[in-house]
Order: sequence, then structure tokens, then C-alpha cells
Amino acid sequence: MGIQIYGFWRSIASFRVRVALKLKGLPFEEIPIDILSGEQFEAGYATVNAERVVPTFIHDGHSVYQSLAIIEYLDEIHPTPRLIPQDAKERAYARSLALMTVADAHPLVTPRVRNHLATAFRAESHAVEAWGKHWTTEGLATYERLLSHRPPEPFALGAEPGLADICIAGHVVTAEYVKLDLSPYPAVARLAERCFAMPAFSTSHPFEQPGYRAASKR
Amino acid sequence: MGIQIYGFWRSIASFRVRVALKLKGLPFEEIPIDILSGEQFEAGYATVNAERVVPTFIHDGHSVYQSLAIIEYLDEIHPTPRLIPQDAKERAYARSLALMTVADAHPLVTPRVRNHLATAFRAESHAVEAWGKHWTTEGLATYERLLSHRPPEPFALGAEPGLADICIAGHVVTAEYVKLDLSPYPAVARLAERCFAMPAFSTSHPFEQPGYRAASKR
Repeated sequence: MGIQIYGFWRSIASFRVRVALKLKGLPFEEIPIDILSGEQFEAGYATVNAERVVPTFIHDGHSVYQSLAIIEYLDEIHPTPRLIPQDAKERAYARSLALMTVADAHPLVTPRVRNHLATAFRAESHAVEAWGKHWTTEGLATYERLLSHRPPEPFALGAEPGLADICIAGHVVTAEYVKLDLSPYPAVARLAERCFAMPAFSTSHPFEQPGYRAASKR
Repeated sequence: MGIQIYGFWRSIASFRVRVALKLKGLPFEEIPIDILSGEQFEAGYATVNAERVVPTFIHDGHSVYQSLAIIEYLDEIHPTPRLIPQDAKERAYARSLALMTVADAHPLVTPRVRNHLATAFRAESHAVEAWGKHWTTEGLATYERLLSHRPPEPFALGAEPGLADICIAGHVVTAEYVKLDLSPYPAVARLAERCFAMPAFSTSHPFEQPGYRAASKR
């Protein structure tokens, strides 16, 4: 049985998993769960994912949750090409870079958080937008400082793209969503450009997914 | 040169690293960075941690950022006792459980987020408190569903505590902070009780740190 992903076009975490699968050349089927309309809370998906979030990775009847855990798992069962280096210090650096968006910046700008801001604080759309810009800017600034300290050659950890690049590229997609100008972050912008020149990244971009095309035609 | 941690008594991410070091029996020095008063933004710490967050792990002049990356690194360089299982599916499950709080619930309730809610939405303290309860409850409910589906024996992945237990125990400390009743989450409560019966967990608890004692005397 092949690989199935429950995902959503807009979801940055789904984007990360899509890129990882494509870099490894693994075919997969993506089953859309519309997290904007609340499909993740319907009974059907609740049995698939106890947290009611996307993505869920399923292979041979085995499920893995959380994009970073999915990418680590893929790297263990299909090690070629490696997305996480073998050297312990380099692995740690790759994971540190990944987590700066996965665990700090990105969780603050997901649809469920934006919706809850509107409900809990009667936040107007411009204030929710400013909130998104604020946290995404924090992430960009952190990455710019780190990439200036250790310049990509040409990817974050070396010659080939990996976990860190996937997560930084996803952060740049979030920056597109919240309409941020990348010019104050030239090292980040160059890295993302290099990534999106590769089909594994460009074809995984949210705006290239069938769900986005269908939504934008409505 | 020994292990140094820049951390803070209240920081759940610092708690996770403290427990991991103690479970492995590794001595360390913790240097406090008061993230409530903004010490993480001072020039001295900015050169230590480009993201201006705690914890930072330093060993032999090498720095690792982000609690999950630090624990993975520790498990690679000091594999006994293992905090992350060796089997790929079990590793994935441990990381999935960890990330549910590390990447979803916890980032929403950190001091920088609570402060920004107050600034950006003029949120009053009771509304910020409700926000904290909301996201912490979401995390508890997810863990309860997962632990009911695969009961701890007696720890989340088996006989010994590991990464998942550390992260769930940290989430339970957050629940203490926001004054949540754990009785609707009996499996989570039992797991946390088992964890805090061990000195590695109990002596790592935020309220057992010198910084908390000093702050509560003021």
C-alpha cells in the first residue's frame, strides 16, 4: 500500500511533508482536509488524527503525526537522499533551524489561532493581519541572523537541500501569505529562491495545489 | 568543559532540557536569563542565542538551540539511558507526542505571546488567562485521547520515561500555571504523577528552581 497524506493546500506543515516526499522521490496520494471550513473536526477525520490537525502520514496502515516527526521518520526508513545530516552537531543545527519556525513562529499564525484571536479578543482582521506579520517577521529576522553567521553553501547545511531548507522555505511561504517584503532578509530570500528553483519545492507550493486552484475559482 | 544551559525557572522548554540531563545523569550549570524582565533581548544574550529565547545548550564551545533539538542531540552523544526509542515507528510516535505540545500548544502560551496579546489587542489579564487555558486544554484533550488509545505501560512508550513523557510532564506544568483541573484527563494526570515521583522530574520542576524561590520571596 502506498503513502497517503491527509493535508491541505494552505497548510505549511503539509507543504513541508510534500517537499520531503518529493525530494526523496516517493509517490504519495494527498487527501484534502479543508481546515478553513473545519473539516478536521468532523468525526471521520477525528479518528484519523487525535489532534484534529494536518498533516497525517499513513503508510502500510501506520500513522505518523506532526510534520517534523514525519520527515524524521521518512529519513529513517528512506535514507536517500538524506534530509538530516549524519553528524550529530550538524543534525542538531538542522533541527534547531527547523524548530525556530515549527515550534516558535509558525504555530502563532495558523488558521485556528487567527480564528481564536477573532473570537477571544474580538480582534479585527487588520489586527489579526498585524499579528501574523509580527511573528513571521520575528522568524525571518532570526533566520537572517543565523544565515549571515553561517552562510548557506548554497543550502543551509551544505550542497543539498534538507530539513532546515524545507522549514525555512515554508516560513517564506507564510511571509507571502502575510505580504511581507523580504528585502530586509536577503540571505533568507536567496535561500528560498534556490529552493523554489527545484521542482520538489515549486510543485509543493500551496498555490500550486489543486485545492488552491479550486478555491480561487470560486 | 562541562555542560552549560542558559535557562529560566519558568520556561517549560528549559524544564524539558533539565529533565533530560538529569535522566542521563549529566551534571550541568544553569545560567538564568530572566525572560520575564526581558533579559533575553540584552546584547550579552543576543550573541549567545540569535533567536533571543531560552534554553541554549553549550558544551565544549558548541551551542544547540531549541529544547527538542537539544534532547535529540543529548540522546545521540550520550545514548544511555535512551530517551528516544530505537525502532523507527516508536521514534516517530515519541516525536509526534512531543511535538503536540512543543509545536502546537506550548508556543501559544509563552510570556512573549501573552505580552504581545496585551499590547496588540489591549487584552486584559483575564482574557489572556482564558487564552492560556484554551490552548492548554486543547493539548491535554489530545494527550488524553492518545493515552487512552495506547495506555502508558507505565510511561508513554514503555517501561522507562523518555522524550514524550518529558514533554507531556512539561505540558502538565503549564496546566498548573493556568490553574486547570486535571480530573477530565485522568490518563495524563497519572502519567505526570508517575513522572514527578522521579527526582529527575521533581527537582526540575519550575517551582523547585532557585530563581522561583528568589522571585516568590520578593
